[in-house]
Amino acid sequence: MNITAGSLLSQINSPADLRKLSKDQLHQVCEELRQYIIDVVSVHGGHFAASLGVVELSVALHYVFNTPYDQLVWDVGHQAYGHKILTGRRDAFPTNRKYKGLSGFPKRDESEYDTFGVGHSSTSISAALGMAMASHYKGEPDRQHIAVIGDGAMTAGMAFEALNHAGVANANVLIILNDNCMSIDPNVGALKEYLTDITTSPTYNKLRDDVWHLLGKLPVGKRFTREMASKLEASLKGVVSKSSNLFESLQLRYFGPIDGHNITKLTDTLQDLKDIPGPKLLHIVTTKGKGYALAEKDQTTWHAPGLFDKITGEIFKKPVDRPQPPKYQDVFGHTIIELAEKNDKIIGITPAMPSGSSLKFMMEKMPGRAFDVGICEQHAVTLSAGMATQGMRVFCNIYSSFFQRAFDQAVHDVAIQHLPVIFCLDRAGLVGEDGPTHHGAYDIAYMRSIPNVIISAPMNEEELRNLMYSAQLEENTHPYVIRYPRGQGVMPEWRTPFKAIKAGTGRKVRDGKEVAILSFGHVGNFVTEACKELISDGLQPAHYDLRFVKPLDEAMLHEVFRNFSKVITVEDGAIIGGVGSAVVEFMSKHNYHAQVKMLGIPDRIVEHGKPEELYRECGYDPAGIAQATREMLGEKITVTI
Amino acid sequence: MNITAGSLLSQINSPADLRKLSKDQLHQVCEELRQYIIDVVSVHGGHFAASLGVVELSVALHYVFNTPYDQLVWDVGHQAYGHKILTGRRDAFPTNRKYKGLSGFPKRDESEYDTFGVGHSSTSISAALGMAMASHYKGEPDRQHIAVIGDGAMTAGMAFEALNHAGVANANVLIILNDNCMSIDPNVGALKEYLTDITTSPTYNKLRDDVWHLLGKLPVGKRFTREMASKLEASLKGVVSKSSNLFESLQLRYFGPIDGHNITKLTDTLQDLKDIPGPKLLHIVTTKGKGYALAEKDQTTWHAPGLFDKITGEIFKKPVDRPQPPKYQDVFGHTIIELAEKNDKIIGITPAMPSGSSLKFMMEKMPGRAFDVGICEQHAVTLSAGMATQGMRVFCNIYSSFFQRAFDQAVHDVAIQHLPVIFCLDRAGLVGEDGPTHHGAYDIAYMRSIPNVIISAPMNEEELRNLMYSAQLEENTHPYVIRYPRGQGVMPEWRTPFKAIKAGTGRKVRDGKEVAILSFGHVGNFVTEACKELISDGLQPAHYDLRFVKPLDEAMLHEVFRNFSKVITVEDGAIIGGVGSAVVEFMSKHNYHAQVKMLGIPDRIVEHGKPEELYRECGYDPAGIAQATREMLGEKITVTI
Repeated sequence: MNITAGSLLSQINSPADLRKLSKDQLHQVCEELRQYIIDVVSVHGGHFAASLGVVELSVALHYVFNTPYDQLVWDVGHQAYGHKILTGRRDAFPTNRKYKGLSGFPKRDESEYDTFGVGHSSTSISAALGMAMASHYKGEPDRQHIAVIGDGAMTAGMAFEALNHAGVANANVLIILNDNCMSIDPNVGALKEYLTDITTSPTYNKLRDDVWHLLGKLPVGKRFTREMASKLEASLKGVVSKSSNLFESLQLRYFGPIDGHNITKLTDTLQDLKDIPGPKLLHIVTTKGKGYALAEKDQTTWHAPGLFDKITGEIFKKPVDRPQPPKYQDVFGHTIIELAEKNDKIIGITPAMPSGSSLKFMMEKMPGRAFDVGICEQHAVTLSAGMATQGMRVFCNIYSSFFQRAFDQAVHDVAIQHLPVIFCLDRAGLVGEDGPTHHGAYDIAYMRSIPNVIISAPMNEEELRNLMYSAQLEENTHPYVIRYPRGQGVMPEWRTPFKAIKAGTGRKVRDGKEVAILSFGHVGNFVTEACKELISDGLQPAHYDLRFVKPLDEAMLHEVFRNFSKVITVEDGAIIGGVGSAVVEFMSKHNYHAQVKMLGIPDRIVEHGKPEELYRECGYDPAGIAQATREMLGEKITVTI
Repeated sequence: MNITAGSLLSQINSPADLRKLSKDQLHQVCEELRQYIIDVVSVHGGHFAASLGVVELSVALHYVFNTPYDQLVWDVGHQAYGHKILTGRRDAFPTNRKYKGLSGFPKRDESEYDTFGVGHSSTSISAALGMAMASHYKGEPDRQHIAVIGDGAMTAGMAFEALNHAGVANANVLIILNDNCMSIDPNVGALKEYLTDITTSPTYNKLRDDVWHLLGKLPVGKRFTREMASKLEASLKGVVSKSSNLFESLQLRYFGPIDGHNITKLTDTLQDLKDIPGPKLLHIVTTKGKGYALAEKDQTTWHAPGLFDKITGEIFKKPVDRPQPPKYQDVFGHTIIELAEKNDKIIGITPAMPSGSSLKFMMEKMPGRAFDVGICEQHAVTLSAGMATQGMRVFCNIYSSFFQRAFDQAVHDVAIQHLPVIFCLDRAGLVGEDGPTHHGAYDIAYMRSIPNVIISAPMNEEELRNLMYSAQLEENTHPYVIRYPRGQGVMPEWRTPFKAIKAGTGRKVRDGKEVAILSFGHVGNFVTEACKELISDGLQPAHYDLRFVKPLDEAMLHEVFRNFSKVITVEDGAIIGGVGSAVVEFMSKHNYHAQVKMLGIPDRIVEHGKPEELYRECGYDPAGIAQATREMLGEKITVTI
């Protein structure tokens, strides 16, 4: 289907074209841009509501500022579709998030307008400040540096670190706080309430009104009272405006709040702010999903709805002819409730991913025992550690790539203290369309070197349930990592009875002769597929599901290396430092000699695409595993994948 | 020398004993506690000024609260000496920071009063909140949870994350903000200026005074004016106290500021706060080094002065009979200036360690090009990335163990974007007396799996200079890690001319026959020592200095594995995932078979002690390397180490 942009938008091939338009035409540009996003995303998929919320802002920024000389950093970046369309990528936009197509996030090597690659939240102020300080040093006083950050992203610690520095840095940085009360789920925390408060009743305005009101009642001559009030107001303004506002407390000049959907007001305000040097913050209020009624109403569902009928709002689901396996996240979400019903020490924690992790089921059912702490991975982990000191069994659920942000806390507050916090790392491995910033590629490597930690990965839903069950048992006294992938599992009948799995025990999936394939986690299913192919070729590969990369099942590995001189390891994680590395460390320790081939994520950035496309590219999809096995066995049969 | 505590302190074996005293006696307890800290630290060493600053607070907390039932978390923890002395560790205190002695930080397995292990900054609020939420869940409404955090630690993002949650959590947590304007170096940032501002002129007080002052001038009947003013004041109080304060903005009840050295005021205030449920913050103002004049005056020097004459204040230096090698940090500090004088793109960044990293030399000499950004590792890294997008060559200097906190930023903002930020990781490897929280054990492992990154370690000062030189050359387009240890190098004449080192090239230190020893970084000097011993035994070990663990010097490794069937790797880092692991990965890739013994930090938490004691314990001091070599060569000679 050919999707065409409106009459104005179709002529905008760069912001320079946009700037040729009159202010009066911007309203139409916004309408056309919004329509184009709806048209394309409904058919091609992608993040949806966030970009609709900043249509006017995207147009206003590129209209007012001299991009790309003026530098624009979009926090997180899934709201940057309008920006992409306005900056030369309109016609390529239907390839958004597709294999070899446009990235779903701003990306430096995609466009000079994408000044900073984003994906994880709350990096924009630091990045823009770095650019601004560089401009200051290089003597470019007129150059503008703009960070657009949501109120959700503002709760992450690093945004605060950057604000604290920006306030005292001699740098030309404009922070636009895009306040829509939403991340993927509704925002939480004191800051959110504060922002609502200043939005609905700006302190200074209220205070001034009170003063006027009271002084108006004074039984004295009007002239005197007005003078008095005016003097008092000046005094109040001096004191209050300096410190009444959280951002002013941090020495950022605060402007707003203004309506982020009023294109005229936005462009006028941005124009004014351009002339004010130094660090400043503009607070705009927007509605996520703006302009698409259903999305405005149910913002979580419409964050990234998949394909839909833009007229009826029907979200398409793939037709299925039989019961489907659940998503791993739902196995987690339901299983933690089952466990918590039996073990009153269980608590659930998520940093801003109640829907994505499915912890929301427990938050609804057991509101005093499951908490969304906001985009605060660091705090989430140390909070869990604090709870663990009191005997709680905390399931702290964090996406693998976001867990990177809590690495220090996992080491310092959990592992060093031997606290049995349970880390459920969702979205571990290649995540697909979100691409490099979101791949959970490194958790095996970065956690494996930490003492005291148990690291596991289930091959299917039953193993996930059993690992969760085992981790919460009193007898487990270790930090316990359970990593599992995005998406569906393999067992339609997944509510199996709980069974304890001893840490450091793998299992033999099938006996074999020529080669042993050791897998970790869900890729074991790829190995099963590959084995079918190899068996049909007359080979007899053995397959072991490691289940734990730390501690390793040493007995099983001794069996492997006593019986096999050719071994293949398969993991959905970075090869360097990962499972294969653990296996060769074991060999070295015990002086085994065998030929080992490691399959997993190679030592380069893997871009976005469907998971299957990426597994294939990296060579550990079923066909890749079969091929690698044949090669190792010397049967270099050329196979068309 | 036998150090005795004063007459009251010597009877306090637990806080219960303290609580038997009358309020009037607390002043004397404080004096004796302060004196005892001075007496012991002057003779046995340790952190000094921080604990002197919280003598009154330590006494007041244990006097007012029912520790250990009430839970006290000291942020960072080097200020907790008074706490340790009051909680049953008075007589053991002279073993503080010594091998097998007391830890320099609160530590859970040392005392039930140490509710949470600390070391890295800004964890206390999260931990105390976790405890408080657990108490709430368990139905212990009267239980108190107190976090003591400095104004420096408050600038780290995770403290803000915790504040943002604490404000809306239904939990009994008291945050004591110990405001002394200092970390190791003076604090920086907007928050510090804000705190100074509210300390010197509390907003509300000022505002009230203004109102009274102005209204007093009104030419009306006194009664009416007073009524009016009172009404206005109430209105002001409602508006201002709710939002005029940064902490109140985050829904924490704010109290203070009060003098943290007034023991009576402190105990009274804490007593009052005990009865106020929910989240609250008490702002106290203290002087780091309080009671020791020299320390009050030069707080950075007296943060951890080493041994000194408590009367004269003379800080003892080891007598030396010949020119000493410099500290690695000073080589960094002087070399970056030399480089920056030639390359105007060079910028230096430190998160709150200008003295510890010696970046202060550059900050003094080139104030527009070297910046202390506060205890903000995350921001420091992404700020550096932002600068790097503008062509700056940023040397971002972070202690290895603190770099853990910026891991996500190093991956997401630097490596994925191929930005050539230069990370100088000081204090890499075992750091000694600071112990497990500060050992830089994991950086090799956690950085090695990240694509695009160069990871190097110098064996001596000359190599450090040459690596720094090489990293800043235009031809380097990669993130570049240079890790080096705490303490002195080995070259008294270290200002050697710069020479480029190609990334991924090692060097052969000595030829040999029976075994190849591959070292990474400063431990190469231990290998040199070990080789001397082995040579005197008639052996001929070869020694290679890898210099880079990523990329590996593949040509050199091919040479090694073609010529040697026995290989030893030596690193000052965790063995798992580290250099040895990289070497066996290489072997596996190229199907080499050799016996490999890996020396480095074992898979357990290594406690504190002198570096030499810890190297020996871990088996990679010179004697340990020699011993391991002999064992590998089958000469199981028993050697007394």
